[in-house]
Amino acid sequence: MSTFPPLKNNLLLRAARGLHTERTPVWMMRQAGRYLPEYRALRAEDAFFDVVRTPELAAEVTLQPLERFPLDAAIIFSDILVVPQVMGLTVEMIKGKGPHFPDPLRSPQDLKRLRTPDIKSDLGYVLEALTLTRHRLDGRAPLIGFVGAPWTLMAYMIEGGGSKTFSKAKTWLFGLPEAAHALLGQITDVLCQFLSAQIEAGAQTVQVFDSWAGLLSPAVFQAFALPYLNRIAFYLQENHPEVPRIVFAKGAHYALPALAATDFDVIGLDWTMDPRKARRLVGAQAALQGNLDPSTLYAAPEQIHDAVHEMLDAFGPVGHIANLGHGMHPDHDPEHARAFVEAVQGYSHAFASVS
Amino acid sequence: MSTFPPLKNNLLLRAARGLHTERTPVWMMRQAGRYLPEYRALRAEDAFFDVVRTPELAAEVTLQPLERFPLDAAIIFSDILVVPQVMGLTVEMIKGKGPHFPDPLRSPQDLKRLRTPDIKSDLGYVLEALTLTRHRLDGRAPLIGFVGAPWTLMAYMIEGGGSKTFSKAKTWLFGLPEAAHALLGQITDVLCQFLSAQIEAGAQTVQVFDSWAGLLSPAVFQAFALPYLNRIAFYLQENHPEVPRIVFAKGAHYALPALAATDFDVIGLDWTMDPRKARRLVGAQAALQGNLDPSTLYAAPEQIHDAVHEMLDAFGPVGHIANLGHGMHPDHDPEHARAFVEAVQGYSHAFASVS
Repeated sequence: MSTFPPLKNNLLLRAARGLHTERTPVWMMRQAGRYLPEYRALRAEDAFFDVVRTPELAAEVTLQPLERFPLDAAIIFSDILVVPQVMGLTVEMIKGKGPHFPDPLRSPQDLKRLRTPDIKSDLGYVLEALTLTRHRLDGRAPLIGFVGAPWTLMAYMIEGGGSKTFSKAKTWLFGLPEAAHALLGQITDVLCQFLSAQIEAGAQTVQVFDSWAGLLSPAVFQAFALPYLNRIAFYLQENHPEVPRIVFAKGAHYALPALAATDFDVIGLDWTMDPRKARRLVGAQAALQGNLDPSTLYAAPEQIHDAVHEMLDAFGPVGHIANLGHGMHPDHDPEHARAFVEAVQGYSHAFASVS
Repeated sequence: MSTFPPLKNNLLLRAARGLHTERTPVWMMRQAGRYLPEYRALRAEDAFFDVVRTPELAAEVTLQPLERFPLDAAIIFSDILVVPQVMGLTVEMIKGKGPHFPDPLRSPQDLKRLRTPDIKSDLGYVLEALTLTRHRLDGRAPLIGFVGAPWTLMAYMIEGGGSKTFSKAKTWLFGLPEAAHALLGQITDVLCQFLSAQIEAGAQTVQVFDSWAGLLSPAVFQAFALPYLNRIAFYLQENHPEVPRIVFAKGAHYALPALAATDFDVIGLDWTMDPRKARRLVGAQAALQGNLDPSTLYAAPEQIHDAVHEMLDAFGPVGHIANLGHGMHPDHDPEHARAFVEAVQGYSHAFASVS
């Protein structure tokens, strides 16, 4: 790791630890993606998973938003579904429809079809992309690695794609709890290894995306999601205590105190959470990340500035990583993303100096 | 109204007022629908909106679940999108895809296309269906009328159908707030008239469905959803004080205290809300309705019973209307719906007598 260029901007890493920063760090979920013309140009030639699997292209796409905006983090361009792939399931990305598993897990019998991947070879392309990107970043900002959370990956592996209710996956939680726990445990083992390898390859912080946490009741989250998130955070704390850990459980408003009690350092919030209330619930146990409604970027730049100022006031200057409450939309205007980044950096700079 | 048969089961109306009941009343959102073979048989011959528009068929479908299960309420079979239809927009129901507006509102200019409906003639079929059903119910249980909330209807009218993000509709909230308020006000006027007419036609309680409230941040809900919900509740309180008013703002976990302060008598909860916490937040200001995760009905009947008992314990015996946290799914087993109803009625009966 000592061969990587020195980090010149550690705002995000310090904010993640709850340390004072001269301004609030900012990045955007899906900051590399279809809203950028340079991304669409590159994707005109290559299929989604081809970009993901080609370290040179993945690094290029990862850096695209940093060439445009003075972002305080890069997040490696990849997909949470590379894990189900290396566990033995086929995943296709269908244009305009999202991910599709032609042969998902249909019954507990199908657990036998899953294999234990060799992370270094099977997911070597992600690791190479991280190392390459870390070099190319040249210390401009820290590099974020990521995975999908066990419940979210399980949901896709059983449902076979996106869904309003994820009924098939939930049938396992309610009707086949032992098989569900077996699957979640197996996924968790892979995620611990994969995150560890991402850190060794160059990730300076990692985020776990529990995109479908909002489909669970508090009791079901407690039983089927939280224990595995806990295991991941604990494993990383034991093995890479220097690397901050971020969790983003979208829609899991009910789980904030429980997540604050885990070994995650940062809790991502979606835009339905009131930042002041979140701060009261979490206290000094964790930093917070988020949470502007991405749809705010449809407003004019002046209105984006106003909304960002309100958000920054609500979170306060310490232990906050500014972000959207979910990813950029494909039809967002890049100049409105710029307004978001500039509003955070301009306002929080003044704000930190008076506080 | 004096010509209707006397009501023999007023459990729901009393629970809605926070009065003591000998057991907890129970009904299910989408209790009339595709999970029932008798519904699918009827729908094999008639298109969705044909059933809605034919009082005889709508009444028949409304009563189907009450012929099977000892439910404590009937809800008129209709659709929230009949209101955009009578305001001048075409709405089609596309099999397997849901509602589709071939010509949605594309810009504030399009507001001119909207007309002020004559409720009694344009929506006479809903009113007739209510009167017919109320007679056929013969006092077995109260009859619920309903509408979609202003924000939810606006979302469909601009988006033109279902959507993950409702980006187009949210663009109005963030970028065209005056047009948004004009549209919301116009919808609200129609809803007040329509609910009033439903009550005059036989509805004994009414529910407002804000199905897409969960897409809004607390501040945006406060600005664009709550004032119009407030107006509806206030109008009904002024004009029909004897009729309990239910609001179900799905996903609006952040709005519970605000909704409790409106003139709604009952607040519906989705399954992500902890009933004890909801009770603490709402106090005696409103009764609560909900909130078993519909996916629980994929479990075996014994497990459904256990989950229902936990839910009833959490809500307590007073001021609770048992329901799912959202609608029945088309692939649910009717016998599991029966297990839900029986579990509520059996357990709450014993429970009320000891408390």
